[in-house]
Amino acid sequence: MARIYLDYASATPVLPEVRQAMAAWLEKFGNSSSLHAEGREAKRSLEQARKQVALLLNAKPEEIYFTSCGSESNNWALRGLLAANKRKGNHLIISSIEHPSVLLAAKRLEREDWDVTYLPVTGEGVVEPKTLTAALTSTTVLVSIMHANGEIGTMEPIAELAALAREAGALFHTDAIASAGQVAINVRELKVDALSLAANQFYGPAGAAALFVREGVRILPLIDGGGQEVGARSGTESVLNLVGMGVAAESAQHRIFRGHDMGNSHRTQYRVPGNSLRDRLKDGLLERVEHIRLNGSWTSRLPHNLHVCIEGASSESLVLGLDQEGIAAGIGSACNSKAMRPSHVLKAIGLSDEEAQGALLLSVGAQTTEDEMDRALEIIPRVVNQLRHVTALTSRA
Amino acid sequence: MARIYLDYASATPVLPEVRQAMAAWLEKFGNSSSLHAEGREAKRSLEQARKQVALLLNAKPEEIYFTSCGSESNNWALRGLLAANKRKGNHLIISSIEHPSVLLAAKRLEREDWDVTYLPVTGEGVVEPKTLTAALTSTTVLVSIMHANGEIGTMEPIAELAALAREAGALFHTDAIASAGQVAINVRELKVDALSLAANQFYGPAGAAALFVREGVRILPLIDGGGQEVGARSGTESVLNLVGMGVAAESAQHRIFRGHDMGNSHRTQYRVPGNSLRDRLKDGLLERVEHIRLNGSWTSRLPHNLHVCIEGASSESLVLGLDQEGIAAGIGSACNSKAMRPSHVLKAIGLSDEEAQGALLLSVGAQTTEDEMDRALEIIPRVVNQLRHVTALTSRA
Repeated sequence: MARIYLDYASATPVLPEVRQAMAAWLEKFGNSSSLHAEGREAKRSLEQARKQVALLLNAKPEEIYFTSCGSESNNWALRGLLAANKRKGNHLIISSIEHPSVLLAAKRLEREDWDVTYLPVTGEGVVEPKTLTAALTSTTVLVSIMHANGEIGTMEPIAELAALAREAGALFHTDAIASAGQVAINVRELKVDALSLAANQFYGPAGAAALFVREGVRILPLIDGGGQEVGARSGTESVLNLVGMGVAAESAQHRIFRGHDMGNSHRTQYRVPGNSLRDRLKDGLLERVEHIRLNGSWTSRLPHNLHVCIEGASSESLVLGLDQEGIAAGIGSACNSKAMRPSHVLKAIGLSDEEAQGALLLSVGAQTTEDEMDRALEIIPRVVNQLRHVTALTSRA
Repeated sequence: MARIYLDYASATPVLPEVRQAMAAWLEKFGNSSSLHAEGREAKRSLEQARKQVALLLNAKPEEIYFTSCGSESNNWALRGLLAANKRKGNHLIISSIEHPSVLLAAKRLEREDWDVTYLPVTGEGVVEPKTLTAALTSTTVLVSIMHANGEIGTMEPIAELAALAREAGALFHTDAIASAGQVAINVRELKVDALSLAANQFYGPAGAAALFVREGVRILPLIDGGGQEVGARSGTESVLNLVGMGVAAESAQHRIFRGHDMGNSHRTQYRVPGNSLRDRLKDGLLERVEHIRLNGSWTSRLPHNLHVCIEGASSESLVLGLDQEGIAAGIGSACNSKAMRPSHVLKAIGLSDEEAQGALLLSVGAQTTEDEMDRALEIIPRVVNQLRHVTALTSRA
């Protein structure tokens, strides 16, 4: 029986057209900084990818800086924007449910004498505009709040939050790694100063990411050197991965806007992932598994994300139990999955350690089928019951 | 007529076995932090690559930290080692011919109140041990001197320099990006604390690099986040590129040690690049081009590197002229090629702006043939004469 992959939130397979473009590049090589024909071809491929990524965000190509991963984009955004604009003050505001690449970067900055405010969130994981208003001061240099939380799926009111920062004269960065390529993002409408995205979240390869920095916003490099990316991010580029990111961005745009702005797309090999299959899974689980809790907002949510806590089973045993039955599932932030402690996100939305124990992240994607949902709805309740049975036996012993 | 590629110093083609391993990985995907089967397979591939890279350096796998590029490795080495060991003092020593990713990182640290000493070099580009001895103080935290200069080819006496740093209680980092995979490197013999290397310099892909950090040496992260690489370098890994780096490292080891330590290799599809073809080119050019100057040391030198200055022609016109005639050549540090100013390396070895003008980096590699050398020796003098003719006409007008 074929495996059921329900961990698109931690890694997406590359699309056929992405793989094709990358396989073609594997036959070539060249350093985009070289002046000869081989170098110029690498440069052209890179700039083509930059245009494709810019289009996905409605940004200008010169506002897109390529990086090696989402974590680099986030670390760079925080360090680079603060260092370049520290004349304004020494205050940074982030939310308490940011990805570790924002959260831990902020904690390191705090040890280096930056003041950091960690905004609380509602029980659904929403950063309320009023909490940001209360935190902004005349010394606030930067606010960084994620576009969507990749763990519990909640999407934040970024346009509104960015406007508040702007009024206070602070810069605004948003980590859109979980959402870019999954939902429509328009940096001109959001009016953010910087935005992080990563290809491996929208059917491109890992090892290709970018930071959008609005024209006119100053940022210092995190990595100095040969002057690639107009001196903002040095280092020989992985043209291979970035070519893949470009094609993935173009495909994502077609997928997101099909039937809307962009008219008929000629790309038909994948469907819009999300809502209907995810909701079928959600409704089925609520019906068949007792003591299950849905996390995150259901009015503003990533379309492919389902996050639940299941009483009487640990996250690790759930993921390993499902794995044995042919289902690949996640815990939360994939990056946290090794740590095995209740996620800081679940704590921030008010769950106790006990309530947070059976956290399970089920994310659907372009290759998910209705049949897989039906099979998953047969397997998951069975695995949960087995685990609960073991837990009951163990606690009695 | 097939093109002649003489810019291995700026980008190497990937070896057939590297391409094969990467093409196989393109069919898969998975986040190495995930617990399920797909994640575990990514993790296994990553750890296999780590072992292969460790073997190339005679390091332990747990001393290898993967990064996205050589520039990241170098920036991280400087920032991370200084930040973790600043109790000892605030002094950093580098040579004046370091790659921009060390040089500019040091200049940024200088603006952040670190004291930086830039060691002079001899006319052949050698850092003499006595200049290091004179610069070391009780507050020196770190010395960073490159293993080999990728531009003029000179290899530095790293074991001796590292011993001097050690005696003074300072850490020692070496940028071995130009040399790793080209010549034998044994970190136990060199006794360095940290060493940078990048796959795209030894027939692996761009976008895969590493920092060796000796067991027991403290370093702070440059990129915080989900805790990959034992928390030292967060970010979802490009398993694709790192798998390629691992295979390239294994191949490099076979290539370097064939006929020596490792006995007979079964890999026969490439030859040891270097000396003989490079020397054939050198001798031919000296014979056929007047007013040509060889740069760098000829007693301690990268085997595949030839760097010359040709009077009466600019570097840019040489590279573009050769490109039109089917030869891909470099200027120096590929990363500098856009800037069009005399390289800091050539200045450091004592060349005037005028003398440095016609700099040309010709580097041979695994696919270079004797026939290509013969053709190059016909083309290069012709292009030089044409350019000199134009220059003479222009200066007379």
